[in-house]
Amino acid sequence: MSEPIPIIGATGALGWGLAMRLAQAGQPVVIGSRSAERAEEAARRVRGAAPGADVAGLVNGEAAQRGPIVFLTVPFRAQAENVNNLREILRPEQILVDCTVPTAAAVGGKATRTVGVWQGSAAEQAQEMVPDGVTVIGALHTVSAKALGDPDAALDEDILVCGDRKADKARVAQIIEMVPGLRAVNAGALEMARIVEQLTSLLISINARYKALAGIRVTGLGEDDHWGRTA
Amino acid sequence: MSEPIPIIGATGALGWGLAMRLAQAGQPVVIGSRSAERAEEAARRVRGAAPGADVAGLVNGEAAQRGPIVFLTVPFRAQAENVNNLREILRPEQILVDCTVPTAAAVGGKATRTVGVWQGSAAEQAQEMVPDGVTVIGALHTVSAKALGDPDAALDEDILVCGDRKADKARVAQIIEMVPGLRAVNAGALEMARIVEQLTSLLISINARYKALAGIRVTGLGEDDHWGRTA
Repeated sequence: MSEPIPIIGATGALGWGLAMRLAQAGQPVVIGSRSAERAEEAARRVRGAAPGADVAGLVNGEAAQRGPIVFLTVPFRAQAENVNNLREILRPEQILVDCTVPTAAAVGGKATRTVGVWQGSAAEQAQEMVPDGVTVIGALHTVSAKALGDPDAALDEDILVCGDRKADKARVAQIIEMVPGLRAVNAGALEMARIVEQLTSLLISINARYKALAGIRVTGLGEDDHWGRTA
Repeated sequence: MSEPIPIIGATGALGWGLAMRLAQAGQPVVIGSRSAERAEEAARRVRGAAPGADVAGLVNGEAAQRGPIVFLTVPFRAQAENVNNLREILRPEQILVDCTVPTAAAVGGKATRTVGVWQGSAAEQAQEMVPDGVTVIGALHTVSAKALGDPDAALDEDILVCGDRKADKARVAQIIEMVPGLRAVNAGALEMARIVEQLTSLLISINARYKALAGIRVTGLGEDDHWGRTA
């Protein structure tokens, strides 16, 4: 893709890892942060890990205008505020890929537990808040932020993608699969984010017991290209 | 294990598949059903798939007395009734492995959705109902009943095991791993069944899109024997 991929909150571990991996794959990315300085500092670190990459660092509102598919990688407790801030920014036809997870850590609880979200999931909360015509897709909940952000860590796992239209999910899947070792799996409608978002807490529970950076693979799917890409 | 494994509700697809796989592994099993005739009929089918196997068919109450680790493989809408019926039967030190999943199909809804269980999960509901001293473990939610019950289907996936004591989970893991192609993963405390039970609905959603019998694998766990078995 020639159009840049904005990543809101990419000074955090997950967003930074995604930015770095996409940059390494030759994809232009735009790092968004509340602070232009921190955005530029994160962009500099990405360039360090991906020499020659096309990486900008901007405040969130500017970053979100730079490409049609915007990733939101902020902690859950900051999600509503961030989506609110994007209300006047996002335009119809844009896709917002929500990666937030409502772990109970957002309210001082355990990361192996979640809080209930009135709309059912963080992704559905985001869908309710974005302007008309903007589509929310849920993804990237199960990859370890630490592994994603470690250029030396080999990935070999799936990303479960939730959304109401396959064509939108396919566009997001294409971005995800730019990262070597990640396969995008169609998990179903956006409401399936109610289940997929919980997997982060499950994996944190497993990681504590195995001293691991666990991920998820869906077995039994066969080798066909589910997304129907021609190239 | 020389002691038989009772499976309550093993005339259903999941329980029957488990009975057949364990019988093929040389493990004595006892099939429980509300009807002695249907239990014996299911046992006969297991013997057909596992010639020479030690398989009995009994009414549930009798079956549950035949071994220390009892599997409960009934539909969610029948779970409470079945656990109630076992209240006078189960003895302290017995383990009840709850495999039920609260899909919304239990109340006429979609199997890709779940119903809320007051205690948090079907497994926690079972734990509240069993007599003192009986331990509930949650397991076997993500393996396809159809694949498990097909002797020609090769399995290659994980079973997420939830429970409050690792020693109890290890005993259940040992049984699960008698089935070729299944690995038992320690998913954490029993309350993690709130998440693990939802995975059945997620997999049903994925199966509909991929025409598959999907399962789950946890990646990144390494090769160490988590369960600390010496043999």
